[in-house]
Amino acid sequence: MSSLYANWSFPTSIRFGVGRIRELAEACRDSGVHRPLLVTDRGLAKLPIASNALEILADDGLECGLYSEVDPNPSELNLAAGLETFRQGEFDGVVAFGGGSGIDLGKMIAFMVGQTRPIWDFEDVGDWWTRADAAAIAPIVAVPTTAGTGSEVGRASVITNSETRVKKIIFHPRVLPTAVISDPELTVGMPPAVTAGTGMDAFAHCLEAYCSPNFHPMCQGIALEGLRLVKNNLQRAFVDGADMEARANMMSAASMGAVAFQKGLGAIHAISHPVGSLFGTHHGTTNAVVIPQALEFNRSAIEGKIELATAYLGIEGGFEGFLGFCRELTTSLNIPTNLTALGAAPDRIEEMAKMALDDPSAASNPVPMTYENTLELYRSCL
Amino acid sequence: MSSLYANWSFPTSIRFGVGRIRELAEACRDSGVHRPLLVTDRGLAKLPIASNALEILADDGLECGLYSEVDPNPSELNLAAGLETFRQGEFDGVVAFGGGSGIDLGKMIAFMVGQTRPIWDFEDVGDWWTRADAAAIAPIVAVPTTAGTGSEVGRASVITNSETRVKKIIFHPRVLPTAVISDPELTVGMPPAVTAGTGMDAFAHCLEAYCSPNFHPMCQGIALEGLRLVKNNLQRAFVDGADMEARANMMSAASMGAVAFQKGLGAIHAISHPVGSLFGTHHGTTNAVVIPQALEFNRSAIEGKIELATAYLGIEGGFEGFLGFCRELTTSLNIPTNLTALGAAPDRIEEMAKMALDDPSAASNPVPMTYENTLELYRSCL
Repeated sequence: MSSLYANWSFPTSIRFGVGRIRELAEACRDSGVHRPLLVTDRGLAKLPIASNALEILADDGLECGLYSEVDPNPSELNLAAGLETFRQGEFDGVVAFGGGSGIDLGKMIAFMVGQTRPIWDFEDVGDWWTRADAAAIAPIVAVPTTAGTGSEVGRASVITNSETRVKKIIFHPRVLPTAVISDPELTVGMPPAVTAGTGMDAFAHCLEAYCSPNFHPMCQGIALEGLRLVKNNLQRAFVDGADMEARANMMSAASMGAVAFQKGLGAIHAISHPVGSLFGTHHGTTNAVVIPQALEFNRSAIEGKIELATAYLGIEGGFEGFLGFCRELTTSLNIPTNLTALGAAPDRIEEMAKMALDDPSAASNPVPMTYENTLELYRSCL
Repeated sequence: MSSLYANWSFPTSIRFGVGRIRELAEACRDSGVHRPLLVTDRGLAKLPIASNALEILADDGLECGLYSEVDPNPSELNLAAGLETFRQGEFDGVVAFGGGSGIDLGKMIAFMVGQTRPIWDFEDVGDWWTRADAAAIAPIVAVPTTAGTGSEVGRASVITNSETRVKKIIFHPRVLPTAVISDPELTVGMPPAVTAGTGMDAFAHCLEAYCSPNFHPMCQGIALEGLRLVKNNLQRAFVDGADMEARANMMSAASMGAVAFQKGLGAIHAISHPVGSLFGTHHGTTNAVVIPQALEFNRSAIEGKIELATAYLGIEGGFEGFLGFCRELTTSLNIPTNLTALGAAPDRIEEMAKMALDDPSAASNPVPMTYENTLELYRSCL
């Protein structure tokens, strides 16, 4: 395992390796944080990995606090209460700890603490991010405890508007954490279903980034290598949660997926988001269900590129072989093979198709998405 | 060509695309530079691309200066005179413009302007970089005019000690430029031999990073995609210097090579550096000459990995096919097939072997390098 240990300098400073959570206090100090507020969700707050992290901070003499009023889809209400805690405790930085929810909300507390405008003014639209006072953003140390969203290396958070239930992407370049501790041991306790769903989220990020027609060769390479890591490790981590080599490679793949999708996402995310919004399904699992159909949908535009990838991934049979591999992978992870089985109502696909076309991911899909072909795509997923 | 146009956020802010040199003044302002000193080498300073850059700055109302007393292997004497120019002109940032020489020295002027210790105290040894006052480093906007070293995205410069003639690597994380303008049009004037030599430098960076046994999956993916770009574009750029698509892809590959080699270099660089030091040969061209022999040298450790790469690169015949491709590529670029033809004296290989083992690149070579096998490797390159 010593070979899966490294310090990486981009997209931010990453300390990667088993046991490196012990460097949490040092990472805080290096980031200029002397009074950290650890932000995580309610479930994680009760687990030993969270109390251990707080202990590491306290043992080093850092006065720290805990804020865990974070919903699975964090809202501006969670944010407001978190900001109140941050200010009252006179904290000077955030440890964003968790899966996507804890990390996303933690990032937003650090971002919003010095702003005067409401959070929705910083939605990822045009150059709205330039409205923010960048100098007022508090430092963020991110600690992922799942291997999926990759929010620890992302420059945005997803926040749900509690009134409209609509999810908004809040973007600022300085929302990228100052430092990341990627300790695969923290993911060992994930139940197999969560390992599967989050892992397939990473796979979908890499796959759509790889297929996106946008010009970003670094992301293309990162996406391809990320696909290879998921292919070789997700099933292993699912079967044996304590397989630390598989856990480490999946943790790396998750970060890589989030870096890579700066190149663009596509139909998988566009049609998966509405299903999640309307039926509360798990994001990564929903992505996994629709992968084969989205591949077929894009076949004319991506077949050659997928064939090149299969060669590197060690998958035989070109595009068909890759499709077969995706189907086998999801089946082996006990993921349903269609959206109906997952809980989506077939009679609402017209509504979902409209929502999918409004999704930012739709624009970078290799084959242009229309209402008609998106409806057809949903039908093929039922 | 509009498709080869993008803004990239890592490892630093990169504006990539034909004609983007027009954004130089904006990139300076965004980086907090209002009085830039443009640093480049003597040859480039006389070319229209340099005067055009100065004009763009002046037209925007930025008072700028020019410093071009930069040797092909820049020394601490070039640095001292540059620092004097920077201070006397009361500049507040550097436009590091050129091939490796201009960019490397420009970065060092920005780095050293606020330091009190001599430059050699910041050699890339252990944590010596922490001796520097990071807050005193002036902002750097880098503008590459070749497609090879990738210094525009690197956190180090190579400075030659004028007394000992030894090259030292000076490292600091904040030596990474604040912003980069990658405009492929600036490379159109490169003569074919320089296109070939610098392009093969990028290829060698990608190849050694890809083969390095160190754990850095992002760099592994970036290296692989960089190899693909060089494979598909270097010969085109060599034959037709105005082929802008090939120039753009090579410019991207060069940056990718420099990002990727954070994963490690190897025998190619270790044995090439002494040849350059003793006989003044071109760095990238020297790398190119020794690639096939270095591949054979490492065969036992890298054969499987190279086979995976060939599949993605579209090269048939596995490891042998890749070897053949490398030989054909260098031949088609009019690069000599051995070090003797390049100008190295065969009777000094004992000396070179000792120097190669002292080179920092030797440590991350896939097959451990010893005096005996390094001597043998040199013999195979004569």
